[in-house]
Amino acid sequence: MGGKMKQSEAGPMAGEDFLQRCRGIVGPGNVITGQDDMAPYLTDWRGRYTGNAVAVVRPATTQETAALVALCAQARVPVVPQGGNTGLVANSVPDQSGQAVVVSLKRLNRIRGVDLVNNTITVEAGCILEEIQNAASDAGRLFPLSLAAEGSCTIGGNLATNAGGTAVLRYGNARDLCLGVEVVNAQGDIWDGLRGLRKDNTGYDLRDLFIGAEGTLGIITAAVLKLYPLPKAQVTALVGLQSPQAALELLSLAQETCAAGLTGFELMSRFSLDLVTRHFPQMRIGLSEEFPQYVLLEISDSESEAHATGLLEALVSEAMERELLGDAIVASSIAQSKALWSLREHITLAQAIEGKHVKHDVSVPISRIAEFIRETDALLQEAFPGIRLVTFGHLGDGNLHYNASAPEGVADDVFIQGQEAINRIVHDSTHRFGGSISAEHGLGTLKRDEIKRYKSAVELRMMTAIKSALDPLNLMNPGKMI
Amino acid sequence: MGGKMKQSEAGPMAGEDFLQRCRGIVGPGNVITGQDDMAPYLTDWRGRYTGNAVAVVRPATTQETAALVALCAQARVPVVPQGGNTGLVANSVPDQSGQAVVVSLKRLNRIRGVDLVNNTITVEAGCILEEIQNAASDAGRLFPLSLAAEGSCTIGGNLATNAGGTAVLRYGNARDLCLGVEVVNAQGDIWDGLRGLRKDNTGYDLRDLFIGAEGTLGIITAAVLKLYPLPKAQVTALVGLQSPQAALELLSLAQETCAAGLTGFELMSRFSLDLVTRHFPQMRIGLSEEFPQYVLLEISDSESEAHATGLLEALVSEAMERELLGDAIVASSIAQSKALWSLREHITLAQAIEGKHVKHDVSVPISRIAEFIRETDALLQEAFPGIRLVTFGHLGDGNLHYNASAPEGVADDVFIQGQEAINRIVHDSTHRFGGSISAEHGLGTLKRDEIKRYKSAVELRMMTAIKSALDPLNLMNPGKMI
Repeated sequence: MGGKMKQSEAGPMAGEDFLQRCRGIVGPGNVITGQDDMAPYLTDWRGRYTGNAVAVVRPATTQETAALVALCAQARVPVVPQGGNTGLVANSVPDQSGQAVVVSLKRLNRIRGVDLVNNTITVEAGCILEEIQNAASDAGRLFPLSLAAEGSCTIGGNLATNAGGTAVLRYGNARDLCLGVEVVNAQGDIWDGLRGLRKDNTGYDLRDLFIGAEGTLGIITAAVLKLYPLPKAQVTALVGLQSPQAALELLSLAQETCAAGLTGFELMSRFSLDLVTRHFPQMRIGLSEEFPQYVLLEISDSESEAHATGLLEALVSEAMERELLGDAIVASSIAQSKALWSLREHITLAQAIEGKHVKHDVSVPISRIAEFIRETDALLQEAFPGIRLVTFGHLGDGNLHYNASAPEGVADDVFIQGQEAINRIVHDSTHRFGGSISAEHGLGTLKRDEIKRYKSAVELRMMTAIKSALDPLNLMNPGKMI
Repeated sequence: MGGKMKQSEAGPMAGEDFLQRCRGIVGPGNVITGQDDMAPYLTDWRGRYTGNAVAVVRPATTQETAALVALCAQARVPVVPQGGNTGLVANSVPDQSGQAVVVSLKRLNRIRGVDLVNNTITVEAGCILEEIQNAASDAGRLFPLSLAAEGSCTIGGNLATNAGGTAVLRYGNARDLCLGVEVVNAQGDIWDGLRGLRKDNTGYDLRDLFIGAEGTLGIITAAVLKLYPLPKAQVTALVGLQSPQAALELLSLAQETCAAGLTGFELMSRFSLDLVTRHFPQMRIGLSEEFPQYVLLEISDSESEAHATGLLEALVSEAMERELLGDAIVASSIAQSKALWSLREHITLAQAIEGKHVKHDVSVPISRIAEFIRETDALLQEAFPGIRLVTFGHLGDGNLHYNASAPEGVADDVFIQGQEAINRIVHDSTHRFGGSISAEHGLGTLKRDEIKRYKSAVELRMMTAIKSALDPLNLMNPGKMI
């Protein structure tokens, strides 16, 4: 057995010499060292973490990326890989030591090819998610990964954080949509794992190890992604219900009736939508009355619009008969369907306008969601009377964005001091319900210490052993995740 | 960073003392040492490898399994985990040194629970696949993993080898059907990763590392598996076509028309079915004439039998219009549907009766299958004139069982001497087409050396680093896979 990956024995390198070598690899214009020019790369999307760096380096190819990482390994310079820098847990910005190099993958942005019969698209890490969706749809195919940041996030970041989003219920997370990856490992070697295969049982699953590793084991530079047939129709409904429990029963019914045709199932509490209509008064819910909970349902169909609408209407009537829901709107046009999704997408914006809040991204077994909400709501109300919970999310995946806003009349700054106590209640509760404190965002800097409370010692030991085996110098995105 | 997993420093233990300790853990009746009693555990399913062992030990619980592995680590005794022992690449039998302990998981056979709303079932490693399918269907759900050995293989083995089978096209491999695992690692620690979550981004993907690792990193003792709604109807058709290329075009059309409703798409060459009708004369193909290729198509439907049949008939007429196929039978009853599947399932048996043959389990990108078959057939005919190729498999997954039988008049024993040369031609060709030499069976003993010809040095280094990090004493299923 070979043990850890071998590293060069050379020592650190003087700063200017190192930068010269970087310039030799990517060209002088792609080594950014001015503070103003580096600024956008050094602060995270939520504006909560600002770090520093030796330089931001922008390779254009996998070979340049490999040469840079090999140089960093030789010079013992930490590497912080960065895509669109849209992460929510500060996993793509450097720490404040100023020792690291940020490697921006945005120039690796070629779509290398589409294979219609294999239903795959091969893309470089810096491709914007929306560009991949568009390339797929231009080729008559669907690339289903879809999330709020799709106009600016990159696929490399999506894979490094195993992104989720609104289509997971039917198509899975980023991990499930990826057949193969190309990786620059911590030694600066290129691993060509760009396989377009549905089946390959020839060794350890390195692909899935790099996916979701948040750049701490190496840099994903390209990927082979799965494509699907474009649905012939997509129809949406908004329904009003009495409780999360009723929403769960509706979910079971919808799965039984529509199977893989059910492509969206989003829960939104009344307060979540109240915030939307308060801050975006042009938006309307449009149901006959108010309900404690709402669900946005989407059905995709390979036959026709009429067939899809028929299925959805039958589902809604059956649910009404079983008294699972109080009222429903089935969108009769693409515009109306977009308006319904828009309500869902405006929750985060509305909450930001309302004031500071404490975000969570938790998952529990789907069957336990109603109980989780009831119990956690009660614990929070007890500790922070009047706290306003913006509960919404991907109910079909067991994933809630369970966010907390200040009680009426309590100043944001006072409220936010309770942040740690709120996190503790929510995360302890999640853990008791067999859940995860990071369903789709990752750990990054934000939850790196928090996770140690909830993972078993044996799991942490195995993670550390793997990190140490593949990145023995701890140079890949240090301080993140592990 | 912690480096490798720490191991106890104690040295080897005398034989009888070790066996006494084993008996203390699992009870005397579950430590088998007699050669006759051990025999069924020491020879692989195909009867090609017979090893030896200190003992076969049969724990009944995860805790017993952990205690055994800890004891083996302390005594430096290699551990060979075994489920149903139905693998095709000799991955569950010990080598001939007689140094190892076979740990049979067959007594860990409880179904721990079914969660209908979460759509999951929690099972222990020794559960027979068919028992899990039945438990699911008794609960009104589908557990889709399905393969020839389902009556005797265990889910632990299915996960350890990332089993494929006939439902991968729609539902994925064993990996895709598993949400969480419980593992006894090489140190004898229990890792409780039994999460029933659709989304969990809190660290390295250890689950997928243990899945497909063929027992070389630890022992999977239990798993949380995904369930699906039971389809309301399944309809099957057998169609005759002129070429693999026509089959590929039919596949694209079927995916476009049926999307996730397409649950089976198996290719069978004429010679494959000729063997079936020759050795099982009661079986009939039933088409109007003979065709060079056949495809078995299956559609599953959440609405009704009539809807499913309508879809399938529309697909077949459209394909006829496009001249993709020459004739078709759409099964009009469950019995007829079973008879069609039975043709497919009898190919392996028929080939065994016909004589010795050289098996392959390759995958290539789906778009390249027709070209792969044409080119590889030609290379083999040139090297072994008259060689008879039994080409069949899961076309929808790009996975072929591309098996070779002796030319007419050539004795089996003479033919089988060419085995290595045949493997070289088929595997080199697979590699040139960007494929895998083990699509669904794994590497085991059989392909452990072969894979070194095709994997890059960097991939082998990373695999070795992981093995060494998690199993530094190389005690877990040594000599298999890596």
